[in-house]
Amino acid sequence: MRILILGVDGYLGWALALRLIRRGHEVIGVDNFYTRRAVEEVGSWSALPILSMEDRVKAVEEVYGSRLVFHEADVTDYDAVRHIIERHRPDAIVHFAEQRSAPYSMIDVNHASYTMVNNLKSTLNVIYSIREVNGRIHLLKMGTLGEFGYPAFKLPEDAFVDAVINGVKDRVLVPRWGGSWYHWSKVFDSYMLVYANKLWGLTITDFHQGPVYGTRTSDIVSDELFTRFDFDDVWGTVFNRFCAEAVIGHELTVYGTGLQRKGFTSLEDTTEALTLLLENPPSDGEYRTVYHYREVLTLNTIADLVKEASREVLGYEPQVVHLPNPRVEPEDDLNYEPERRVLPRLGMYGLRRNMRDEVKGILRDLARYRGRIEAKASVLKPRVKWRGS
Amino acid sequence: MRILILGVDGYLGWALALRLIRRGHEVIGVDNFYTRRAVEEVGSWSALPILSMEDRVKAVEEVYGSRLVFHEADVTDYDAVRHIIERHRPDAIVHFAEQRSAPYSMIDVNHASYTMVNNLKSTLNVIYSIREVNGRIHLLKMGTLGEFGYPAFKLPEDAFVDAVINGVKDRVLVPRWGGSWYHWSKVFDSYMLVYANKLWGLTITDFHQGPVYGTRTSDIVSDELFTRFDFDDVWGTVFNRFCAEAVIGHELTVYGTGLQRKGFTSLEDTTEALTLLLENPPSDGEYRTVYHYREVLTLNTIADLVKEASREVLGYEPQVVHLPNPRVEPEDDLNYEPERRVLPRLGMYGLRRNMRDEVKGILRDLARYRGRIEAKASVLKPRVKWRGS
Repeated sequence: MRILILGVDGYLGWALALRLIRRGHEVIGVDNFYTRRAVEEVGSWSALPILSMEDRVKAVEEVYGSRLVFHEADVTDYDAVRHIIERHRPDAIVHFAEQRSAPYSMIDVNHASYTMVNNLKSTLNVIYSIREVNGRIHLLKMGTLGEFGYPAFKLPEDAFVDAVINGVKDRVLVPRWGGSWYHWSKVFDSYMLVYANKLWGLTITDFHQGPVYGTRTSDIVSDELFTRFDFDDVWGTVFNRFCAEAVIGHELTVYGTGLQRKGFTSLEDTTEALTLLLENPPSDGEYRTVYHYREVLTLNTIADLVKEASREVLGYEPQVVHLPNPRVEPEDDLNYEPERRVLPRLGMYGLRRNMRDEVKGILRDLARYRGRIEAKASVLKPRVKWRGS
Repeated sequence: MRILILGVDGYLGWALALRLIRRGHEVIGVDNFYTRRAVEEVGSWSALPILSMEDRVKAVEEVYGSRLVFHEADVTDYDAVRHIIERHRPDAIVHFAEQRSAPYSMIDVNHASYTMVNNLKSTLNVIYSIREVNGRIHLLKMGTLGEFGYPAFKLPEDAFVDAVINGVKDRVLVPRWGGSWYHWSKVFDSYMLVYANKLWGLTITDFHQGPVYGTRTSDIVSDELFTRFDFDDVWGTVFNRFCAEAVIGHELTVYGTGLQRKGFTSLEDTTEALTLLLENPPSDGEYRTVYHYREVLTLNTIADLVKEASREVLGYEPQVVHLPNPRVEPEDDLNYEPERRVLPRLGMYGLRRNMRDEVKGILRDLARYRGRIEAKASVLKPRVKWRGS
């Protein structure tokens, strides 16, 4: 297949490109290197050094003998996106070209606006390009389970759900609740995609899961093929931050009570699921909602797990401390189970990796680049407050 | 009170400014004259001639002896908005500064993007400015009943509703469904406002009603005080288009079967309701949803009503024709009744004007400017197709 990845320079984009190339697909990548600049903007960098795109392309060619075709372009530029799609006529488009950090979206009005404008505009550009060039291109869009807040109801793997409201039965869009401007932008994306599907019959997979962790997939066989690993307060996930803190002997900083549950998936499992969905597209004109498996853990459990692995891998045990929570989120151990039908039907019945097994390898990878984390240690502490300063 | 109207040069903005000034309020208005340019962009103009803002301000001063303070500014410019709010410290802000046409949002990707970016960015700028300057300013935001699609359930006058989903009771955001990118931008606005209310405790009135009609309020006592009247396929509502067609002896053009129901409110009633809501703000930190009364009519009924009034006022009866519907909307006479609690509690128990009574005066006003409609007669026919060309 010919697959276009928008946001190929990102954490998932890069890992997915390697997998698809290795499986013999033709991959075209697009990026504007915004994440590199935005991580720099908050004073940080990737813990694992990543090559320039030019050198990345060379490394892929050396290791896998295939060429990644790359275009530097901004997906908020409609003409650029449409031109690339017209030129390459892909079978599928993977849309990762979004601002992906909740804290970044909460810095101030400019970052909130940037997030909304970048994410909604890029989605509009992609769907209009597909409509104009070839309405049958399969669009795989990265959402997040964070679009749903913490529903009491059993989350159906569908865009719509039967509901009884004020005594009357109706079929409604699955209700959502964003926990940051970033999350809202993803909610709005999903609703726009459902509308584009109804209006123009576009074929869409809306893929949702929680934070992804890990430094490796089976395709990342050398440091030259590393994907990025963010650990600062804005771009790093809680797990990444704990690992970085452990590696430089800092305390592990839990926001709030630490009873918050999050659902995690390894980079390997995520790459596997995305590949499966691309190789098995929905039928023409179908809107397919997919919830990926996830390992649901409280922040306290993750901290314990990183602490234990540190003792084994690093030879010491970091302390765990609790900081006032800069976010506005429930801390009362909420949980819900999304329905899963699509991935099992495609032969994926669960997670293949779990955090407890993976964390040691991650700490080993990071320990070799301890100096890069130490150089930016000041950006580990929370700086963005949801309620404002 | 001191009231800031964003979008004061628009149809509702101008009529509301006159009412508030007449009632002794201090009014500060902001506009970037975008609607004037965008109506020109589609080859049209207001059927009723409107003065420049400079002359409007003079006319108000002559008739009512009060000065409207005006700032030319774009509400998507955060610094400008914040500066104006800081300088005037209003008690309330009325946010009309949005792209308000469904067909305009469906022209192409650029108009879709413009609508999303302008509307969401302006809302973010307003809520952040309020948070930064004075979190107790009452924000009155214009929504639309079109945010809800055609729900089967009884629409509650609230941001949230109890629902039973997959057998489980939950309290969820009232489900919505937009019928154009414009409508979706308003859905997203409402959700952002609910979030801002929960996050920062902002005091908000989210006001929803259907299309507004009319050339007059009791404050528009001379042609110099006219508010705009759009009649083209992009900026005019169906009622306005029928009136314009009648005035120049054209056929009345009904899209599709004409069984579509829409809920209309007169300019006088709308101005009255908005004034009442501003003079009776919600309590601090309250999120107040308001559905205004409306007269629910099918397009066929409206056409008949305009036809009859034409016979009386213009001395002839226009024919009614049906055109293929360029929109994607249900045409099967759907209806629903929104709950109404807020306006009755404030003493407004129903509509004071209805279309049948108002239409004659409207035709008389328009007939005096027949030449302006004739000059732009070509823009009465539908040019924007929801499904694309």
